[in-house]
Amino acid sequence: MADNPSFVLQSIEKVVYEQRPVPEPGPNDVVVEVKKTGICGSDVHYLVEGRIGDFIVEKPMVLGHESAGIISKVGSDVKHLKVGDRVAMEPGATCKRCDLCKAGRYELCADIEFAATPPYDGTLARYYRLPSDLAYRLPDNLTLEDGAMMEPLSVGVHSVSNLGGLRTGQSVAVFGCGPVGLLCMAVAKALGASRVIAVDIVPQRLEFAKGYAATETYLPPKPLEGESKIDYSRRNAEQMKKELNIQDRGERAVDLVIDASGAEVSIQTAFYIVGAGGTFVQVGMGAPNITINIALLSVKEVTYKGSFRYGPGDYALAISLAASGKVELKPLVSHRYAFNEAITAFEATRAGKSKDGKGVIKAIISGPE
Amino acid sequence: MADNPSFVLQSIEKVVYEQRPVPEPGPNDVVVEVKKTGICGSDVHYLVEGRIGDFIVEKPMVLGHESAGIISKVGSDVKHLKVGDRVAMEPGATCKRCDLCKAGRYELCADIEFAATPPYDGTLARYYRLPSDLAYRLPDNLTLEDGAMMEPLSVGVHSVSNLGGLRTGQSVAVFGCGPVGLLCMAVAKALGASRVIAVDIVPQRLEFAKGYAATETYLPPKPLEGESKIDYSRRNAEQMKKELNIQDRGERAVDLVIDASGAEVSIQTAFYIVGAGGTFVQVGMGAPNITINIALLSVKEVTYKGSFRYGPGDYALAISLAASGKVELKPLVSHRYAFNEAITAFEATRAGKSKDGKGVIKAIISGPE
Amino acid sequence: MADNPSFVLQSIEKVVYEQRPVPEPGPNDVVVEVKKTGICGSDVHYLVEGRIGDFIVEKPMVLGHESAGIISKVGSDVKHLKVGDRVAMEPGATCKRCDLCKAGRYELCADIEFAATPPYDGTLARYYRLPSDLAYRLPDNLTLEDGAMMEPLSVGVHSVSNLGGLRTGQSVAVFGCGPVGLLCMAVAKALGASRVIAVDIVPQRLEFAKGYAATETYLPPKPLEGESKIDYSRRNAEQMKKELNIQDRGERAVDLVIDASGAEVSIQTAFYIVGAGGTFVQVGMGAPNITINIALLSVKEVTYKGSFRYGPGDYALAISLAASGKVELKPLVSHRYAFNEAITAFEATRAGKSKDGKGVIKAIISGPE
Amino acid sequence: MADNPSFVLQSIEKVVYEQRPVPEPGPNDVVVEVKKTGICGSDVHYLVEGRIGDFIVEKPMVLGHESAGIISKVGSDVKHLKVGDRVAMEPGATCKRCDLCKAGRYELCADIEFAATPPYDGTLARYYRLPSDLAYRLPDNLTLEDGAMMEPLSVGVHSVSNLGGLRTGQSVAVFGCGPVGLLCMAVAKALGASRVIAVDIVPQRLEFAKGYAATETYLPPKPLEGESKIDYSRRNAEQMKKELNIQDRGERAVDLVIDASGAEVSIQTAFYIVGAGGTFVQVGMGAPNITINIALLSVKEVTYKGSFRYGPGDYALAISLAASGKVELKPLVSHRYAFNEAITAFEATRAGKSKDGKGVIKAIISGPE
Ligand SMILES: NC(=O)c1ccc[n+]([C@@H]2O[C@H](COP(=O)([O-])OP(=O)(O)OC[C@H]3O[C@@H](n4cnc5c(N)ncnc54)[C@H](O)[C@@H]3O)[C@@H](O)[C@H]2O)c1
Ligand SMILES: NC(=O)c1ccc[n+]([C@@H]2O[C@H](COP(=O)([O-])OP(=O)(O)OC[C@H]3O[C@@H](n4cnc5c(N)ncnc54)[C@H](O)[C@@H]3O)[C@@H](O)[C@H]2O)c1
Ligand SMILES: NC(=O)c1ccc[n+]([C@@H]2O[C@H](COP(=O)([O-])OP(=O)(O)OC[C@H]3O[C@@H](n4cnc5c(N)ncnc54)[C@H](O)[C@@H]3O)[C@@H](O)[C@H]2O)c1
Ligand SMILES: NC(=O)c1ccc[n+]([C@@H]2O[C@H](COP(=O)([O-])OP(=O)(O)OC[C@H]3O[C@@H](n4cnc5c(N)ncnc54)[C@H](O)[C@@H]3O)[C@@H](O)[C@H]2O)c1
Ligand SMILES: [Zn+2]
Ligand SMILES: [Zn+2]
Ligand SMILES: [Zn+2]
Ligand SMILES: [Zn+2]
Repeated sequence: MADNPSFVLQSIEKVVYEQRPVPEPGPNDVVVEVKKTGICGSDVHYLVEGRIGDFIVEKPMVLGHESAGIISKVGSDVKHLKVGDRVAMEPGATCKRCDLCKAGRYELCADIEFAATPPYDGTLARYYRLPSDLAYRLPDNLTLEDGAMMEPLSVGVHSVSNLGGLRTGQSVAVFGCGPVGLLCMAVAKALGASRVIAVDIVPQRLEFAKGYAATETYLPPKPLEGESKIDYSRRNAEQMKKELNIQDRGERAVDLVIDASGAEVSIQTAFYIVGAGGTFVQVGMGAPNITINIALLSVKEVTYKGSFRYGPGDYALAISLAASGKVELKPLVSHRYAFNEAITAFEATRAGKSKDGKGVIKAIISGPE
Repeated sequence: MADNPSFVLQSIEKVVYEQRPVPEPGPNDVVVEVKKTGICGSDVHYLVEGRIGDFIVEKPMVLGHESAGIISKVGSDVKHLKVGDRVAMEPGATCKRCDLCKAGRYELCADIEFAATPPYDGTLARYYRLPSDLAYRLPDNLTLEDGAMMEPLSVGVHSVSNLGGLRTGQSVAVFGCGPVGLLCMAVAKALGASRVIAVDIVPQRLEFAKGYAATETYLPPKPLEGESKIDYSRRNAEQMKKELNIQDRGERAVDLVIDASGAEVSIQTAFYIVGAGGTFVQVGMGAPNITINIALLSVKEVTYKGSFRYGPGDYALAISLAASGKVELKPLVSHRYAFNEAITAFEATRAGKSKDGKGVIKAIISGPE
Repeated sequence: MADNPSFVLQSIEKVVYEQRPVPEPGPNDVVVEVKKTGICGSDVHYLVEGRIGDFIVEKPMVLGHESAGIISKVGSDVKHLKVGDRVAMEPGATCKRCDLCKAGRYELCADIEFAATPPYDGTLARYYRLPSDLAYRLPDNLTLEDGAMMEPLSVGVHSVSNLGGLRTGQSVAVFGCGPVGLLCMAVAKALGASRVIAVDIVPQRLEFAKGYAATETYLPPKPLEGESKIDYSRRNAEQMKKELNIQDRGERAVDLVIDASGAEVSIQTAFYIVGAGGTFVQVGMGAPNITINIALLSVKEVTYKGSFRYGPGDYALAISLAASGKVELKPLVSHRYAFNEAITAFEATRAGKSKDGKGVIKAIISGPE
Repeated sequence: MADNPSFVLQSIEKVVYEQRPVPEPGPNDVVVEVKKTGICGSDVHYLVEGRIGDFIVEKPMVLGHESAGIISKVGSDVKHLKVGDRVAMEPGATCKRCDLCKAGRYELCADIEFAATPPYDGTLARYYRLPSDLAYRLPDNLTLEDGAMMEPLSVGVHSVSNLGGLRTGQSVAVFGCGPVGLLCMAVAKALGASRVIAVDIVPQRLEFAKGYAATETYLPPKPLEGESKIDYSRRNAEQMKKELNIQDRGERAVDLVIDASGAEVSIQTAFYIVGAGGTFVQVGMGAPNITINIALLSVKEVTYKGSFRYGPGDYALAISLAASGKVELKPLVSHRYAFNEAITAFEATRAGKSKDGKGVIKAIISGPE
């Protein structure tokens, strides 16, 4: 029990298992025995590119940040948790003292220590230390696997509920049907959206979305040869508005559009789709520099919000939505691996499918035995 | 009194004086004898281009929409106004029945009839009919010229107060020191902004801004040869942050950025300047398709709002700010013309200066004698 | 078709059927052939007391304001409705020109002409004229009876969604299980409340609530002899908190409390029940002067909101909640009467039960054949 | 320097000077050498009554919580402050981990340790330990006395700006012209209120208010013999509305009413005065159980907010308002005492005037030499 095997990214494309010291909790910390960890696109990105934007892997870093586990030690001042509690782990420790932390926007804390974001180690290890307020006890009817899914679900909650401010009866369109987009749809449905329109360029993903949480789907056409992105997007938007009878105002207007694809053409199209006075939330992360039709945002007085991870209340709402059955998580877990198969798990996620050809939505690694 | 001389745009570059029928008020209308009218960039744009976006001048149209005057007739149901009252004229009649009108967003009404926006006639005439609730009685200490300035001031109020939500003590940067940008600064100052940073590429405009409502000014460098806009903007932003000690967080952060230039590089630069959790409001209208660094909006969770004209409460606040002396309007009126000099007034506004070389900020035409 | 039989309150306790002129629509009006009308406590109140607060019945007044019907005439400018359309009727015509109407708070318009509120006639007649934007076309899966229920449902929507700002996952307590309280619970459930606590002093009402939309119920104890109301309420609150494990903070806190009973002790108790930082919405209308423990509102920084009828968007959301099956209306209609049985319908509502002893929740009168 | 003389309340009416251990800073704390401390009504209350509500003085407690001083030690992790810095001291250390702390409502933290609120010691000592984020460096143009005034000024900021949401151009009425009421007025003026109406039953206080920050004053009449409070308040409100031409709607409406008197009749009157759709903020703390006319809150859909101390951003805005000259503090400091005269200072505050008959607004004690 004193060993702490960890899955470490040493440099681009190079991952190894290493023993790391077992962490000790500070007075307000807990140490969690990690049991389930989902693989996220960003983990793969660090493996393949060694960086995301300004975050550069400069020394070996444990991967993983979508985790749940069992409390193995509690700090001296921790009262609401005890050894043996099953918890979802929110992977970003913040300073709690800066203006943003105190004003209810801790996701913007300059000093956030986020798991598997350089230089901070991630959760793919036997033990992980966490401030106790970031360990959320799981209700009995949620599994540890559900617990690991709280991380991407919280991204959906943050975008759709917290920033998007979706209210029951409103209509939503979500671009991108990867795990994040699907969970945005699930949240929208759980919040009582009247329409949940799924958009993706992969027909199978649309099919899945339809069976999961979308009320309607839209498959964009292929771009024409020589067509600029912005021309394509206008054409795409016109087709989408016609197919789905989307208007700029009134009851056929779309109140909220989420981009969870990161694709430039999705964002361009979205600006045509969002209704007058509506809201657009950018969740996807793609090429930093894109072309947009800014006039669309002006004449419709659109509110555009950038979305970054999750903030106060998001994990709690995520757990509540899952525990009450309003959001279903099991359908999203397409692949399961043991800790010593982590490399295979990463390969499948990277390829988008496992060797047997089955498409990956979310692959979960069971923490070291 | 039965004649109604009007200044009519017949087609591109062709303006004439015409007699138009004198309007009769409906039960809830007033007819105003127009006394003062400011010339706006959009009036000039219609004159020169015959269109703005999808609004195309297809039949002769009276120009002008920044006006004030004296009530000459009141409809049968009008109680709060009487003949002889001096009023500022809000130039957009809305349907009052659609969801957006009822929800407090009438600026987005699909059926708005806006003065001097095709196909609706403007205010550069002796008489103009207005729904009575859009005629705002002027306090005694405001002149009719002040009254005409309520239109652009309301654009500033809408952007800075209503959409920007500026609160006393926050800091603001405004790109563009034309009349709209200057009035945004004046509103920011009136609302108690701690910093009002003015940006323009014309040094004299910056000087004027400094003497008027800005606390600091910034003159962007010239682009280098071959430098892309987005590269230029990053360099520009770095210089601006250094010169003015602007940070992303804390007390040196900029809470609100307004673009009132319409320039692509201003918008690009603004995304670097706005603080984490801050707000950007787009007032300027320029090239529709621009390149932006979207990652900046994501990691700082910026709220971007498109701003279109003005809505409920904006005219009232504009009048209150001017009447209380919190916003000064007189310094902005650089040129004055008689009704029969309207063409000269337009020429000066178009050239940016009158024949004597004096720079135009706002030119005001006195309504027909 | 030219006759317009109407159910008229002449003076206290005196109602008669009268012929009234058939209304003609103005250009933006519709005339509706009324088909279903629910009886509301306020109708009964005017019958019995001749007044509600400052609204005094000084001349004969047609009763009824919870109605739905079929369009029989449309004004010349009406485009979105046609003769034969089935519509829910929002019974308050507002001025559309005052600051409050334009700012999205039309329920506060000083000039509102509300059906069956003196001196304005109500809807219990064959024909009723309505501004066309207050006639909401019913989806095919809603009946005209459902349409009549949109009025009290909109009271619930206004209180719980619009003013209460309830968000999915929050917890709610509703005092009073009459039709208004029940519909508040139904809205709370439809919006995804995690707990919906029903409170009433009548056990059968609690039972109904439990089967309808509440997740938990609470029956207050009887007051002790000589116990002051405020002492009783503290004791009542302590018992309620204990029975239902309600805390002031954390996940067992109550985010939103609605009073739909009008009872002083409910309001007093509610201030103990509502959580720190929570919201209380007053819907019930009872004795104007009551005693409250104001310190509770201070130390928990409670937001208290008075609720009056409904405003922009409330009818639309009500229809959407009912049409999507999120709110069920049929269980609430306990009694049905023909137009010529209106007096019996009023008697049953007044007594709280029909002659056969069946408790009244909502009695609906079918409009004149 | 190793001694720590402290002004200690031992039991009701019994205060003594005691030596207390000099506090050591934790890693994120600072120790401040206290230089200026204002006396607050609550300090006097503990002295005279030994309790405020449920907070009971059960063991000796150092008094004082409105303080400023000079940093004498910094914890090992503190970077933004150094020994010698002049700071205003926010006197409530919160847990930083509960939902309310993280959601931006730390004033509601269940575990707040507030100076001079039992069982926590206050600041009237040579040394006081504070979490470093609650020590706000004073700009050069503010004195340490100004620094001590940040505490009551933050109460005003919290009520008027944060909870009241006052916007430039709105009108305000403040009941009570003690230090808290006066500072509420000062904040209202600084935020650009168009009207600041001061109400007090003491004419000299009104005079002071007029010279300080009010635009208008109102002196309530005396109650008639046998007149109930609620009858008196209606009469009082009618007179006030007439005298000051206050309406329920439109430009003569009062947007925001603050009670800073704690008097039942003020609160009762306020409900008549506040405009339709307006906001009332309760700052004063008086008798817990009062009678209110609840119907007034309903038909005008008033938002009532309880106000408790101050929260995120309030101290920062207070400092900014004072440093920019928008709020003046010097006029409020009516009395100054040395540390060894603390008892005299308390006596004067308790009597409302010093021996020489001069009325006390705020008495400041200079910390031990
Ligand atoms: N904001 C945050 O905090 C946050 C957190 C996690 C993930 N993300 C981002 O969210 C995005 C989605 O994450 P994911 O894990 O679901 O990724 P994913 O790659 O599994 O899903 C992206 C989906 O978008 C679809 N897509 C690609 N181009 C498209 C187009 N032109 N139109 C419509 N659909 C298109 C793809 O087919 C795919 O199904 C990524 O960009 C990721 O970086 C952001
Ligand atoms: N949103 C609305 O409802 C609304 C209403 C009125 C005007 N507008 C728009 O607002 C903008 C400003 O209007 P105006 O009348 O003041 O125009 P203007 O042309 O007088 O002023 C624009 C200013 O921007 C400056 N500028 C140009 N490029 C710049 C750059 N790269 N960086 C910094 N400054 C730069 C110019 O020197 C000029 O001073 C226009 O685009 C106009 O179309 C919008
Ligand atoms: N704000 C508005 O716009 C609006 C609109 C409609 C109705 N109302 C008001 O809402 C209230 C409810 O209307 P309704 O038609 O459902 O009335 P109702 O009389 O049918 O229901 C009131 C319920 O409250 C219960 N009750 C009474 N005393 C109680 C107590 N001490 N504790 C708990 N429950 C108690 C009663 O048993 C009853 O079930 C009424 O006061 C009505 O005037 C307000
Ligand atoms: N909410 C909080 O966090 C907070 C913080 C500090 C103080 N307070 C409370 O704020 C209130 C004001 O504090 P203060 O230090 O200014 O007290 P204070 O006693 O100096 O001032 C109260 C003022 O109210 C006036 N007043 C009394 N009855 C009145 C009436 N009927 N109408 C009008 N005015 C009347 C008094 O003449 C006096 O000028 C107190 O109740 C205090 O407990 C609250
Ligand atoms: Zn932080
Ligand atoms: Zn409209
Ligand atoms: Zn109105
Ligand atoms: Zn806390």
